[in-house]
Amino acid sequence: MTSPVPTDHALLGARDGRSRVATPALIVDLDRFEANIAAMAAFARDAGIALRPHAKSHKCAAIARRQIAAGALGQSCATLGEAEAFAAAGIGGLLVTSPLVTAEKIARLAALVGSGADVMAVTDNAGHVAALAAAMPAGRRLKVLVDLNVGQNRTGVATAEAALVLARAVAASPALEFAGLQAYWGHLQHRADFAAREAAVREGAAHVASIRDRLVREGFAVPIVSGGGTGTAMLDAATGVFTELQPGSYVFLDADYAAVLAGDARRVVLAPSLFVACAVVSANVPGRATIDAGLKALAHDGPKTDVARGAPPGTTYSFAGDEHGYLMLPPNAVAPALGTRIELLSSHCDPTVNLYDALHCVRGETLVDIWTIDARGRH
Amino acid sequence: MTSPVPTDHALLGARDGRSRVATPALIVDLDRFEANIAAMAAFARDAGIALRPHAKSHKCAAIARRQIAAGALGQSCATLGEAEAFAAAGIGGLLVTSPLVTAEKIARLAALVGSGADVMAVTDNAGHVAALAAAMPAGRRLKVLVDLNVGQNRTGVATAEAALVLARAVAASPALEFAGLQAYWGHLQHRADFAAREAAVREGAAHVASIRDRLVREGFAVPIVSGGGTGTAMLDAATGVFTELQPGSYVFLDADYAAVLAGDARRVVLAPSLFVACAVVSANVPGRATIDAGLKALAHDGPKTDVARGAPPGTTYSFAGDEHGYLMLPPNAVAPALGTRIELLSSHCDPTVNLYDALHCVRGETLVDIWTIDARGRH
Repeated sequence: MTSPVPTDHALLGARDGRSRVATPALIVDLDRFEANIAAMAAFARDAGIALRPHAKSHKCAAIARRQIAAGALGQSCATLGEAEAFAAAGIGGLLVTSPLVTAEKIARLAALVGSGADVMAVTDNAGHVAALAAAMPAGRRLKVLVDLNVGQNRTGVATAEAALVLARAVAASPALEFAGLQAYWGHLQHRADFAAREAAVREGAAHVASIRDRLVREGFAVPIVSGGGTGTAMLDAATGVFTELQPGSYVFLDADYAAVLAGDARRVVLAPSLFVACAVVSANVPGRATIDAGLKALAHDGPKTDVARGAPPGTTYSFAGDEHGYLMLPPNAVAPALGTRIELLSSHCDPTVNLYDALHCVRGETLVDIWTIDARGRH
Repeated sequence: MTSPVPTDHALLGARDGRSRVATPALIVDLDRFEANIAAMAAFARDAGIALRPHAKSHKCAAIARRQIAAGALGQSCATLGEAEAFAAAGIGGLLVTSPLVTAEKIARLAALVGSGADVMAVTDNAGHVAALAAAMPAGRRLKVLVDLNVGQNRTGVATAEAALVLARAVAASPALEFAGLQAYWGHLQHRADFAAREAAVREGAAHVASIRDRLVREGFAVPIVSGGGTGTAMLDAATGVFTELQPGSYVFLDADYAAVLAGDARRVVLAPSLFVACAVVSANVPGRATIDAGLKALAHDGPKTDVARGAPPGTTYSFAGDEHGYLMLPPNAVAPALGTRIELLSSHCDPTVNLYDALHCVRGETLVDIWTIDARGRH
């Protein structure tokens, strides 16, 4: 409940607070947001699979608590900084989904484990296993997942043989505990063609199952197989190989994922809940207006940013520098007046959230809460 | 002197601190950085023009103080949040270069003026002038520049007649003081063709001069004509119409501006001083390595990110998600080992800086200081 703009706090409870917050600001439509959390939780319950939602999308302890209250095991974290921030907020069931490799990171992980935080790590390298084992504090055991490369060629090992070598190395250390496998297909999350996405998930899952089965034959328990994301969660659950899923963006459902999921008839019904509130700051040029949201207010790697509120239908957005954007009006439209509040639909939620310190939560037009983005910028 | 990673502070003074800071991190090569500040200051002195460098690039009070110590008038700010942060740090000579339009922003500006901060504003609308005048605290006068649209169609008025209307409105209010004109050609800053850029600056400057002269004929003093940026500063100074320039990126000289300025034979000699330090976190795939710097560590609107240190010559960078990048190695190159420190050259410094809380300042390999990015995320 902190904001970088103290004047926003005076708007809590105001029935027109949504259109008075300092711009640019992140707006969370709580009704939609809560429905998204409930829908994914219900889906997972029905599918008999656990959720460890990815905190990289929201970086916000208030959201983590709501996901856990709805049944989630904890939080997946992309960075050690996220895990540190969530542990400090009293949140457990943390899994850092990327290898923490440098001496600096391993020392911090050891300190986090030493503090009693409930955190797991991943590995894809035998030397890394040795470094983790050497660093852990006496009397603590770090649970480790062996990370599989399932096609993104980003992290992980690609073969059962390599996974077995790492599982044995982990199991051989009294400081570590082999807890299972991670298999994340980031390259499939945004694949627009549903049939191609489904086929790729099936093929990948068969490969993961074969590695899991090999480990079981070699005497390992494999209690966790973690993976999946918002774009594949429904397909991942159907494979039967995962024990838990890591979707993150589903809480906000940005324009990119909304387009991806539109083709999936079996999808969990999600609705966009995250908007960038901004204002018209100049309107002297016919056919356009300038707003106070540019490269520092919106991620710019996704699809075109949609104008959700405040401008005539057919208005489009384009970047106009670090701090500005253009609203390009349709022919013969009346330009919005100076100061008019505009809301943009986030095209890629994760890097957009990372630009802000707070989420402004609304119900209808009322500002009902301000949540700190605890791990903003925490690499 | 704060860092989000407390362990970095223990590295201050360490001769290998540059390669031990928590990754990803922003590295400032102080020798180059100081040479950039000195070169621009010397250029401005020789040209008989003042500098009000743009803080949007660095958002850092420690850098503002160094620019002012080298002769700068103060700081240009893109946002009210930047001006608030710099005023709180005791920095004067502030000019907010974008119109502050909403009731919320005008109230905050009035509070800032009331606190005694040395801050100027811009306007491009008569209703806005009236709103500013009505909001200013008793006993204070806000200096206002009339903002000119010199081709970017972002903010400003386009004609002498419109500028005159606004100058009269400002001058008519006892709460406001007409202080001159702002003319910023953002659309010319990155124009790669030097001759085209030079011609456009000459043409634009003639237009600005004609507006200034019209105001003078109507009895206005025009003490300030502010504009220019890193891409056009040398050309702007030669026009004789500006009293002060607003370059920002020159302190870091990102890859984009380095390419733009390479064609200008008369350029101030600047060198890239800002790097993103990161580390290899996975190296299981032949021909590539994965590093811990992705969309949340680097702006991604500029040219391709260059690999500056730590990898074989010919290595290229590509994004691999929010928190990761791929190093694509040249044929037959030896892959960097797990944990190897890599430095990337920032392709667009302004939005990259805005992703971090601190600048790690080095001389050679020694970490000598950590500067807070005071206005990070301050919209």
